[in-house]
Amino acid sequence: MYTNNSSIISGVSVCVPKNEINNYSFLKKDGVDQFIKHTGVKKHFLSSNNKLSTSDLCYVAAERIIKKLNWKKKDISFLIFVSQTRDFLLPSTACILQNRLNLRKNILAYDIPLGCSGFVYGLYNSYLISVNMKSKGLLLAGDMSSKLINLNDEKMAGLFGDAGTATAIQYEKKSKKLSFFTFGTDGSGYNNLIYNSSGINDSNKKKYLEMNGAKIFEFALHEVPVQIKKLLSKSKNSINSIDYFVFHQANKFMLNALGKKLGLPKEKVIYSIDRFGNTNSASIPITLSENLKKKNDLKILISGFGVGYSWAIAIINLHKPKFDSLQKI
Amino acid sequence: MYTNNSSIISGVSVCVPKNEINNYSFLKKDGVDQFIKHTGVKKHFLSSNNKLSTSDLCYVAAERIIKKLNWKKKDISFLIFVSQTRDFLLPSTACILQNRLNLRKNILAYDIPLGCSGFVYGLYNSYLISVNMKSKGLLLAGDMSSKLINLNDEKMAGLFGDAGTATAIQYEKKSKKLSFFTFGTDGSGYNNLIYNSSGINDSNKKKYLEMNGAKIFEFALHEVPVQIKKLLSKSKNSINSIDYFVFHQANKFMLNALGKKLGLPKEKVIYSIDRFGNTNSASIPITLSENLKKKNDLKILISGFGVGYSWAIAIINLHKPKFDSLQKI
Repeated sequence: MYTNNSSIISGVSVCVPKNEINNYSFLKKDGVDQFIKHTGVKKHFLSSNNKLSTSDLCYVAAERIIKKLNWKKKDISFLIFVSQTRDFLLPSTACILQNRLNLRKNILAYDIPLGCSGFVYGLYNSYLISVNMKSKGLLLAGDMSSKLINLNDEKMAGLFGDAGTATAIQYEKKSKKLSFFTFGTDGSGYNNLIYNSSGINDSNKKKYLEMNGAKIFEFALHEVPVQIKKLLSKSKNSINSIDYFVFHQANKFMLNALGKKLGLPKEKVIYSIDRFGNTNSASIPITLSENLKKKNDLKILISGFGVGYSWAIAIINLHKPKFDSLQKI
Repeated sequence: MYTNNSSIISGVSVCVPKNEINNYSFLKKDGVDQFIKHTGVKKHFLSSNNKLSTSDLCYVAAERIIKKLNWKKKDISFLIFVSQTRDFLLPSTACILQNRLNLRKNILAYDIPLGCSGFVYGLYNSYLISVNMKSKGLLLAGDMSSKLINLNDEKMAGLFGDAGTATAIQYEKKSKKLSFFTFGTDGSGYNNLIYNSSGINDSNKKKYLEMNGAKIFEFALHEVPVQIKKLLSKSKNSINSIDYFVFHQANKFMLNALGKKLGLPKEKVIYSIDRFGNTNSASIPITLSENLKKKNDLKILISGFGVGYSWAIAIINLHKPKFDSLQKI
């Protein structure tokens, strides 16, 4: 367990492609009810525009949160871009966003290509950097799964959603509330969620994301509750002391099973999968932003898990964060 | 300028593909002398094995440095993999390496897809994490440029080299010597060094790394000396107080121009480009490891710059680091 006591989330903004899909009309009639019951996905956003990129979504979210918080761009000292659908293999999309957002040049900017656990990884890195720099920065997490999947494969196209998010991270000397983090990796399951190509001159045949849902479910149910209990105990927290539990929005069936295994009260588990689908690294900030707009002074447990296998859990404090209204482009 | 006073480099190991290329015989006779004079590349390693991956090189380097330092694998708390030629678009290569190296599961592991500035970025992240965790970890930086370039294009195939490195990072409470870091990004030059594809189902036609050498040269000569002077001054160092200057090994012409502009004594600038070519994120650890084997207690300035544009400069202290002998696979 690792701690941080001087960084906070000041706000979150979310941007999605305007193409909203209603699964009741999108999916074949005979299996639609069962699919929606299992995954929990009623609506979601999938781009129908080939030219739209993950950086386009994160750019809009970043501009919005900077404006909402009245930040001066010259004060932004770092930019971390978390995504599995980066604009180019090289250069880093973070560099492209630095220029597009017209941020200062003496900025630290890099990409972290992580999925389900990516937001918590990005948050930990942002917290460490903001303390070291005694400054503020942007954590941009987003994925356009529409690029990775076969849109004719209903099991995938009905589940995933595109989204970009911007989370504003601030150093606060006076913040005395501790955040707690824990991380894990088990590469033995690397091929259960994979895009089986390096992306370099791989023109053999069209490739799509491959997912062994049963194996991922088995891993998550086995590993995540144990690690969450450990973190609660080591940080001297309990289920009672946590206001909300925010899981990576994998699918409703898995989230229900996790909640049950941990014995969580239903009202403490919040969701975005019904309206956004599985949005990969964007799922945790979306769930925060879309459910907690009028809330204040909260202690939240967030947990990302999946591709890698990789998992990350944190207990964070939210004090008057500003959650922006949803943007569509 | 950002500081750290509790992390050190304990050792470095380097691994290259066994296919060594001598530019005198590899390149066309009529331009070979001028090419070698300009780039400085006499020999380098380029894989002729399609199946060899960047993780293969970094795996060997990691095993070697763990053995050389007598580290217990159960003590390794983090693994950062810096590369532009990752094994898969997803999952992270760091997860695959966790499993292959048989490291513990409660480990933080992620990729940073950065090139020329990547090692310094990885080092900064490693230092922050090792202090926060009060623990040790591995920074694996490597690239197989042979996958990104057209091997029939002599200007590219004569310049770049494949390599994987492992740098062991250790938290040392008693280390009171400060390290200094500075970072910069200018995405306006993003398309002057680019692999113009996201890597996702891009089967239009074969793509190669595109480089506008003149523009990169112009950027580096304009930006890097100014930033190095600033860091020296802010950290109360001078050219005299630094034992060695280690630049990203872009090409000899650029390195000579940088040394001249900064007024560096020739004996303080060390190289690996003559024997390894431009090895991207691996170039700085290779240059340290292959030149400083018998040295001790050194103050070194390292500087990576290029693709992005992105640059990063650090002043670090080396106290009895262990540099392994070169591995070839």
